[in-house]
Amino acid sequence: MKKSSIYGAGLACSVAVNLFFLVNLYVGASRKQPGWSQRAAAEAEVVAGVSCSGHGRAFLDGPVVDGKHVCECNSCYGGPDCSLFLPECLANADGGDPLFLEPFWVQHAASSAVLVSGWHRMSYSFGDLSTISSELEKLIRRVHAIAKNAVTEGRHIVFGVGSTQLLSAAVYALSPENSSSPARVVAAAPYYPLYEIQTEYFRSVDFRFEGDANLWKNSSDMAAANVIEFVTSPNNPDCQLNKAVLQGPLVKTIHDHAYYWPHFTAIPAPADEDLMIFTTSKLTGHAGSRLGWAVIKDEAVYQRMLQYIETSELGVSRDTQLRALKLLKAVLEGDGREIFEFAYRKMSTRWEKLRRALSTSTRFSLQPTAPQYCTFFQEVRGPSPAYAWLKCEREEEDDCSAVLHAANILGREGKKYGVENRHTRLSLLRSQDDFDLLLSRLTNLVSGEDGAKSSM
Amino acid sequence: MKKSSIYGAGLACSVAVNLFFLVNLYVGASRKQPGWSQRAAAEAEVVAGVSCSGHGRAFLDGPVVDGKHVCECNSCYGGPDCSLFLPECLANADGGDPLFLEPFWVQHAASSAVLVSGWHRMSYSFGDLSTISSELEKLIRRVHAIAKNAVTEGRHIVFGVGSTQLLSAAVYALSPENSSSPARVVAAAPYYPLYEIQTEYFRSVDFRFEGDANLWKNSSDMAAANVIEFVTSPNNPDCQLNKAVLQGPLVKTIHDHAYYWPHFTAIPAPADEDLMIFTTSKLTGHAGSRLGWAVIKDEAVYQRMLQYIETSELGVSRDTQLRALKLLKAVLEGDGREIFEFAYRKMSTRWEKLRRALSTSTRFSLQPTAPQYCTFFQEVRGPSPAYAWLKCEREEEDDCSAVLHAANILGREGKKYGVENRHTRLSLLRSQDDFDLLLSRLTNLVSGEDGAKSSM
Repeated sequence: MKKSSIYGAGLACSVAVNLFFLVNLYVGASRKQPGWSQRAAAEAEVVAGVSCSGHGRAFLDGPVVDGKHVCECNSCYGGPDCSLFLPECLANADGGDPLFLEPFWVQHAASSAVLVSGWHRMSYSFGDLSTISSELEKLIRRVHAIAKNAVTEGRHIVFGVGSTQLLSAAVYALSPENSSSPARVVAAAPYYPLYEIQTEYFRSVDFRFEGDANLWKNSSDMAAANVIEFVTSPNNPDCQLNKAVLQGPLVKTIHDHAYYWPHFTAIPAPADEDLMIFTTSKLTGHAGSRLGWAVIKDEAVYQRMLQYIETSELGVSRDTQLRALKLLKAVLEGDGREIFEFAYRKMSTRWEKLRRALSTSTRFSLQPTAPQYCTFFQEVRGPSPAYAWLKCEREEEDDCSAVLHAANILGREGKKYGVENRHTRLSLLRSQDDFDLLLSRLTNLVSGEDGAKSSM
Repeated sequence: MKKSSIYGAGLACSVAVNLFFLVNLYVGASRKQPGWSQRAAAEAEVVAGVSCSGHGRAFLDGPVVDGKHVCECNSCYGGPDCSLFLPECLANADGGDPLFLEPFWVQHAASSAVLVSGWHRMSYSFGDLSTISSELEKLIRRVHAIAKNAVTEGRHIVFGVGSTQLLSAAVYALSPENSSSPARVVAAAPYYPLYEIQTEYFRSVDFRFEGDANLWKNSSDMAAANVIEFVTSPNNPDCQLNKAVLQGPLVKTIHDHAYYWPHFTAIPAPADEDLMIFTTSKLTGHAGSRLGWAVIKDEAVYQRMLQYIETSELGVSRDTQLRALKLLKAVLEGDGREIFEFAYRKMSTRWEKLRRALSTSTRFSLQPTAPQYCTFFQEVRGPSPAYAWLKCEREEEDDCSAVLHAANILGREGKKYGVENRHTRLSLLRSQDDFDLLLSRLTNLVSGEDGAKSSM
């Protein structure tokens, strides 16, 4: 074959490939012909290709300027490509945005992407007439089996809009019907603020928030009262593996296990409580998907939780369930251990850096942590908590958040958790930028400390 | 160029194309490189390609047998490819599954597909720190402007998990705080059952369901009572353009406009009420997405509805919001009128067929309908209701659902809507299979009728 005919063939080939794509894009655009997916795939790749200097990201549903998707920058970064560091900006250690897992998904781009067709699951129900994807339910059980963090065999599963919604559903489900007095809803302080906010918000005649579970421990009228105790393990904010404080024939417990994954704690044994709540937010990092699930022993409680979800909203979005299915399939590829190893490595490294930064401080202290045997890793492992529960040790510094705020650090004050402001919660599971800035600001704070212990 | 070298070039070209895809699939699989979207695109196309004889569909999240996605058949069809008609099966005219719009989305496969990356919107909030996509909000306003069915300029918008959740959010938002007596929640019968079910379920001290609004019209103590009236227009079940029954300084109204689209009614004028609720379910047909929105005049009411959503679940799934964005973009392509023309054509054709089938009957009658001027179509147009509100006319047939059930038709009985069982609701917006079977069964029923009017 002559050189010119090779070029000719190359040209023909190139034309053919281009025609193939054009046909896909424009013929496929009007009717469901092979290639109808290419427009969506191309759009997603274009958006993913927008460079934001590693300090931000463009999103498919984000703002568009001059026909182009623009960068949304991480906190403390700005400029069109997020390359501008904003030095005066507050280091954000406030909310529990689990963006530490974002790099995992960028690394697993192909296995975690999902293409949703225009006609996907338009109906109110799945083929089995339920509003819960049985395929997703199966994967959730498999993930628990791999993480060894919960017994799910023979248990019922209900989905909710994040664990958030399931907390409320559980209170409704566990409140006695037609009781003369409302159930007392309690949680051991420091406790996650939403328990109180939600319980009070719904203003039901059947339950009432009654504060710190510890205050009711030796109460004489406890034996005759209906009680619902939230048990958070690991606890938010202090990451301790809490146990129920109250016991008795009329005491029911809701185990909030959002953080009971190898990411954030050693797993001493699979949890096997009557009612346990989990969320994708703290497993895969997809807080924005708003998908949680409850694992329930009792059939009647399961039916009542289902009733809450059906009555509130006729079930959780099928789009969300499809995406979660794809994410968990990606999690389960290979031996299914990679996400736990990734998350633990990331969180334990952050904790170690934080611990070192504060090791010479006499002004600040962290919650107690200890190495513990983990059935997932099958070894004794160090701590990797989601939050630092920081204490200001100086007598006069009784508003720890204010002390940090003066050093340009945004934490969440203790009083939100039902305790005094001497403690503040610092989130460690946010983006790398947020963590790096927090660490740097804390390091400065400690290095300027009068009376710091000499460096080890 | 010789024939053999053309073949050679063709072969090389084919090999190149195949290599291109293989590289995309397998290199792209482990890192975010161009082509990472191809695996998801290919999976979606394979599932879409499963043939179910036009009487079912395979879904990406559906059951898999021997590595292949299997068909989920429409009601009354079975077999591996859904080609088997089940003659004894009940014609399903029960729920409001809006599958009449499914063919629209198959026709718009390329423009409506969306590819969700693994790292899409993991955060609790959008870039503007809200939980509501401002891009989606913009598109919703544009769709209303095209349909001419609602004033949205200067109005606030809140998203909820379907209109279902917003109904409850609205009751909470409109109930007076710290009132000595609960607000009375009412709706003119026949009314959508969920108003009663939800209001009673939440057992709030701040409101109570009090039944048919008509019964309170001339009540003397109405002037001093806090009242919340649900006004459903078009009404579910009878499709009338209802107006508020009650007026007064302490009366608040929730306008449920789920069906106020050119699909189902003439649009006499854009709705401009204080609090209006809409849903994708009845606009695009995506009931499974569970996305609704409220259009609100008053800032304080808006803030209270937002508080409900934030407290219940920290906002609606970002996956759902992304998909809705893509669907509405597809709706808005061209002049944005196509979906309304498609939906009206489909629903008016069904109504006309039903009307004709029952035209000789003395046993059954339909709700009144009349041609009406529509500002969207800019002409007088015929009816296209979402439901038939069928009445059994024979004295002894006071359970109309039972009469239909005996003829293998599943409707929804009147008592669910707060009236007697002489009426039954027949859903007309389900799949073509469901409608065809309903029509055929009704035709048989009428043709066997003693004393039917002679055919026109």
